Amino acid sequence: MTIQLIGYPASTFTLIVIATLEELGIPFELTPLTNFADIKTPEYLATKHPFGMIPVLIDDGFKLYESRAIARYLVNKYQGTKNSTVLIPSDVQKAALVNQYISVETSYFTDPLKKLFYQEIFSKRHGQPVDPEIIKVAREEINKVLDVYEKLLEGKDYLTGEFSLADIVHYPYTQYAVNSGHGDLFNDPKRPNVARWWKIISEREAWKKVISENKFFD
Amino acid sequence: MTIQLIGYPASTFTLIVIATLEELGIPFELTPLTNFADIKTPEYLATKHPFGMIPVLIDDGFKLYESRAIARYLVNKYQGTKNSTVLIPSDVQKAALVNQYISVETSYFTDPLKKLFYQEIFSKRHGQPVDPEIIKVAREEINKVLDVYEKLLEGKDYLTGEFSLADIVHYPYTQYAVNSGHGDLFNDPKRPNVARWWKIISEREAWKKVISENKFFD
Repeated sequence: MTIQLIGYPASTFTLIVIATLEELGIPFELTPLTNFADIKTPEYLATKHPFGMIPVLIDDGFKLYESRAIARYLVNKYQGTKNSTVLIPSDVQKAALVNQYISVETSYFTDPLKKLFYQEIFSKRHGQPVDPEIIKVAREEINKVLDVYEKLLEGKDYLTGEFSLADIVHYPYTQYAVNSGHGDLFNDPKRPNVARWWKIISEREAWKKVISENKFFD
Repeated sequence: MTIQLIGYPASTFTLIVIATLEELGIPFELTPLTNFADIKTPEYLATKHPFGMIPVLIDDGFKLYESRAIARYLVNKYQGTKNSTVLIPSDVQKAALVNQYISVETSYFTDPLKKLFYQEIFSKRHGQPVDPEIIKVAREEINKVLDVYEKLLEGKDYLTGEFSLADIVHYPYTQYAVNSGHGDLFNDPKRPNVARWWKIISEREAWKKVISENKFFD
């Protein structure tokens, strides 16, 4: 039975799951939401996600929510079955580093990127005013975070040394930043390691497919 | 070689790792910080945690940071070696539910608890004024979250049905809420499932040991 993904292709959370599915070569059917009010109905809360969020995965009757939990599940169940891509290695120390950098993304990377996203994407999409001061501060914060990433990526093409789920979780907010005119942050000659990392991971076939099929990345 | 944990026993992040170590029966040595400025020195940033945070685990020369990554590593490496406690089951679907509820804690549970923590614990500890209005709003938000947990815990003693790492990540902020006079939230007759869950997990030997050895839980 084909895997069903309830989500919204513009959602950064949904995009993490889609990228994971594409990397692992797993066929799936996206059930897009037509209205965000749909995820707050009593029926959705009772049967899909108790906090009224997306994405939700349904795999042969097994239901799972929360994007990072879904991504880990897909890796644990399907890694190696459709192609040879490894997103979480079996080696305990290597897997630990994947988990470490997944947490680094959540804890330090995303917050300033999210501020930029709300101004450049969300506010514009909803016809709300954009605050240049918030954008300026967000960029300063992103620069500080990327200065640390520059050290983390020294001598490496990927965060753990090999492509992994840790790189995937960085895709959505970075792509939105690049698409909204802030690509310079990820292509700064002062940060050659970050620039090399983003170039390599953004040119992967799976991510290019995600972008090309996603009208929100126009 | 004994596992070394660099942390601070009052830190909610450090407490997650300590609880995991105690549950798995792993001997460790806590290297407590004497001064929070220590984690922002160039030496600490370069050799321990690039974002200047705690905890950091050092296991026979292997260094790892970020509490949830450390907890997962300890489970992957040591589960079943010292006792029979299972914190992440090997079954793919059961493991997925552990990951789902770990994410639920991060995404929905902790934010309002954190607001309460900053007022009741952090502000008081640092002699800063406490804002009763923030406490009131935080309690309202916690009530809403726990109303959802009441449904999630229907017919179950633990979040996934069996004790797991998902329950452990809920310990620190809940314990701080209970200790600072908000235990009623977790012992409300209107929420018998939440009350049963907290009673059962808070009475586990490992957590009682963590509390009894931690002067910050006076």
